[in-house]
Amino acid sequence: MGGSIDRALAAHPLSAPSLRLWELLARLNDRLDKNAVVVGPDVGDAYCADATDERGVRPSILFRPRDTASVSAILSACDALRQPIVVQGGRTGLAGAARPMAGEVALSLERMSAIEPVNEDAGTVIAHAGATLQAVQETATSHGFMFGVDIGARGTSTIGGNIATNAGGIRVLRYGMYRAQVLGLEAVMADGSVLTGLKGLSKDNSGFDLNQIFIGSEGTLGVVTRACLRLHPKPQSLANAFCALPSLGAAIALLRRLRQRLGPSLSAFEVIFPAVYAGVLNRTGAPPPVPAGAGMYALIEMQGQDEAGDEDRFAAALMECYEEGIVSDVAASRSLRDYHAIWALREAASEFIFSMDHVAGFDVSLPISAMQRFLDRATAEIATVDPAASIYIFGHLGDGNLHFLVRTHHYDRVADATYSCVASEGGSISAEHGIGLEKKKWLALVRSPTEMAAMRRLKAAFDPNNILNPGRVFDMEPTTPRERA
Amino acid sequence: MGGSIDRALAAHPLSAPSLRLWELLARLNDRLDKNAVVVGPDVGDAYCADATDERGVRPSILFRPRDTASVSAILSACDALRQPIVVQGGRTGLAGAARPMAGEVALSLERMSAIEPVNEDAGTVIAHAGATLQAVQETATSHGFMFGVDIGARGTSTIGGNIATNAGGIRVLRYGMYRAQVLGLEAVMADGSVLTGLKGLSKDNSGFDLNQIFIGSEGTLGVVTRACLRLHPKPQSLANAFCALPSLGAAIALLRRLRQRLGPSLSAFEVIFPAVYAGVLNRTGAPPPVPAGAGMYALIEMQGQDEAGDEDRFAAALMECYEEGIVSDVAASRSLRDYHAIWALREAASEFIFSMDHVAGFDVSLPISAMQRFLDRATAEIATVDPAASIYIFGHLGDGNLHFLVRTHHYDRVADATYSCVASEGGSISAEHGIGLEKKKWLALVRSPTEMAAMRRLKAAFDPNNILNPGRVFDMEPTTPRERA
Repeated sequence: MGGSIDRALAAHPLSAPSLRLWELLARLNDRLDKNAVVVGPDVGDAYCADATDERGVRPSILFRPRDTASVSAILSACDALRQPIVVQGGRTGLAGAARPMAGEVALSLERMSAIEPVNEDAGTVIAHAGATLQAVQETATSHGFMFGVDIGARGTSTIGGNIATNAGGIRVLRYGMYRAQVLGLEAVMADGSVLTGLKGLSKDNSGFDLNQIFIGSEGTLGVVTRACLRLHPKPQSLANAFCALPSLGAAIALLRRLRQRLGPSLSAFEVIFPAVYAGVLNRTGAPPPVPAGAGMYALIEMQGQDEAGDEDRFAAALMECYEEGIVSDVAASRSLRDYHAIWALREAASEFIFSMDHVAGFDVSLPISAMQRFLDRATAEIATVDPAASIYIFGHLGDGNLHFLVRTHHYDRVADATYSCVASEGGSISAEHGIGLEKKKWLALVRSPTEMAAMRRLKAAFDPNNILNPGRVFDMEPTTPRERA
Repeated sequence: MGGSIDRALAAHPLSAPSLRLWELLARLNDRLDKNAVVVGPDVGDAYCADATDERGVRPSILFRPRDTASVSAILSACDALRQPIVVQGGRTGLAGAARPMAGEVALSLERMSAIEPVNEDAGTVIAHAGATLQAVQETATSHGFMFGVDIGARGTSTIGGNIATNAGGIRVLRYGMYRAQVLGLEAVMADGSVLTGLKGLSKDNSGFDLNQIFIGSEGTLGVVTRACLRLHPKPQSLANAFCALPSLGAAIALLRRLRQRLGPSLSAFEVIFPAVYAGVLNRTGAPPPVPAGAGMYALIEMQGQDEAGDEDRFAAALMECYEEGIVSDVAASRSLRDYHAIWALREAASEFIFSMDHVAGFDVSLPISAMQRFLDRATAEIATVDPAASIYIFGHLGDGNLHFLVRTHHYDRVADATYSCVASEGGSISAEHGIGLEKKKWLALVRSPTEMAAMRRLKAAFDPNNILNPGRVFDMEPTTPRERA
């Protein structure tokens, strides 16, 4: 520590340093360790973008604090100087919340990647914000537990970013969203004050649960620095199956039946629509688990604690559905190899989509009872705005969450049509990825003026100078400056 | 409607009506139906108290709105006149949040007790705030589902009050607190604006989840009027057992083992300490399921979906623990009669406690790894402040939640000692019942000045005139009046 910022500035003087940035660095000099500040061209390309195709602006300063006290010092200084900050975890987001905009400094939590010892009695672990999801999953597994959330970006996405976006993934049906995994948080507020709620108690009604406010707030209300996460017993049995069904309605009936039969052991229920299944088979060239030609395909997974009996129960439940005609064909895994091969089909669905160009992806959720109506309407409206468009769908039916993908050259009109249909059927324009910058213009389709006003109240209360991820999720209306308490 | 308030006033003129109350009634005249307003001595005794022994003040006006629009009108008028309101559900709370204080008008949600049709595909139901917990449980059951929360006051406590206190109960281990049951809320803010978030989507990250703010806020941030509640598949198997164990440590080992063996099917894990078990046996006179003399007793329940196999799995897991000496004696239910008899022991524990006078009850939770240390310290400190005190303990070990009961004539000193020990071991001074009026003076033991300040910011943002349940949970520091946006 000490003098690190002087040295950084000497090496790479800011090309056009504003007085505010100089002042910021001066205030933080001697308060951060030598690896905590990167300035000017030394800020790598990776910090300029997230996982979207858009590139952001290179931040003049990148802060890489090593601990919560450093985060507090940085936020306190930025708040005093009204310096906007973009907060970054693994930058795997798809909504633009972590993509720097002009005039922002970047705050990356990447160096705060520790995972504290697992509390085996409680079944909890405290992870620091920059730990990757995969590191937490592996820590849980090595202690006989399992972490409930899994998403494709597991190796890069971080706990802080996961919490900021309330990530979900494929097993929400069983384990819930990230919100359900979080037993406590440490978060730094815009003014640098540190809220610590890491007791990890399942039951605690002593005052407001402030942790909830930060989950899913996309870095706009505070910076999560540590989280106490719930772990689940490691499943003793794993089984999955790939089914062909006559229709979406049959898939909904199957979901309902399996919930009754398997209860919480039903851990995933994915659907793949025919156009995607055809594309997958075309790509992989492997023998299909069930023949093409059905109206719908479903991938079902069961995780249980009864190694001896679960597979039979799973097979019996599926057989019952086959006999009743809910399912027209079933391929159930009989080995771990089968199990992975079935999941590989689901991965291949994503790869098939990424292999095409000009695909607009919409991550929407709908009430299950309105899903068919949404599909009919959206299909018709998209055909009107772009008769050449083709639609590809797969997703997490168990959570009402569809990846609705449209190959089109008319992104804006297709997006307007899709999100309008989502809104009028009572759905969400962002099931998982948040709003960030990308979906802001459509947010008012699904949130009322009263809700928008309440969100702005919350933002003004927690970040009165609007320094944290400003302009993400929504813009603050011009407000009268007011005295701070 | 129309003129109802005139008639009410004519029949029972307010004895000392302040100008503000007259103004309030004048503003609401013609906006509420004839049964929505009760004034003066017509306000029944029931509305003056909650489930504590303390009596509150009789409110000059009781509002009993029949719909959300009426709640909005009442709040809007009260906010404009800075009229404080106490919000009431079933008034079964034990922390005083619903007990009227001088100068408050009461708002009871009792007439808003409808339950909308169950959405069987989604497994959800929308209940209005005044519906009782039991009515929701019965609705769920009659549609092949189960509601995840059960508490003793099920027949009287209401959904709105349950949500306002984030109620828990005996199956939090399996189903989580109320927060985990709530998929969406309709809530009226202090200024009368209505937030409606009743889509019932499992995955929805489009903007801040405002619903979370109201859950557990004890009526201080808004008035919940409707809730979209998650239903679970009805269990197909039920089994329970009553165990004797050598110690609390053995009970913790048993809990951990059963979580691994039974996973989410482990639905309750209650402990009864020896002094309570002795009292229960003394009261019931029934043959004890396991003999007295052990160091600890546990009641364990499993709920599963496998009618054929679950009972054997449960028995096998317990047998394993018996053979390893974790458990010294087990009585497992072999019939529904046994099952209810075992739960009756747990009910008898509450009755035994209520049969004694001068019992101070503390509803605390602790990290499981700190529980024994808390017990040792609290026992020693209580012996110092009141050598005549006797301690009785039972509770929800699966959630770290103990009902810690002390028979004493020195309530305040015993409370100080108990809560100080809870705080220094990282526990919660209110696992379930909230803070209300009763526990306010101890809140700062477990929440930092930063947390207290953040709670006040939230309160000021959502209820700037401090009209909703003022003085509950915490007092607002004197604040500079500021212009409202």
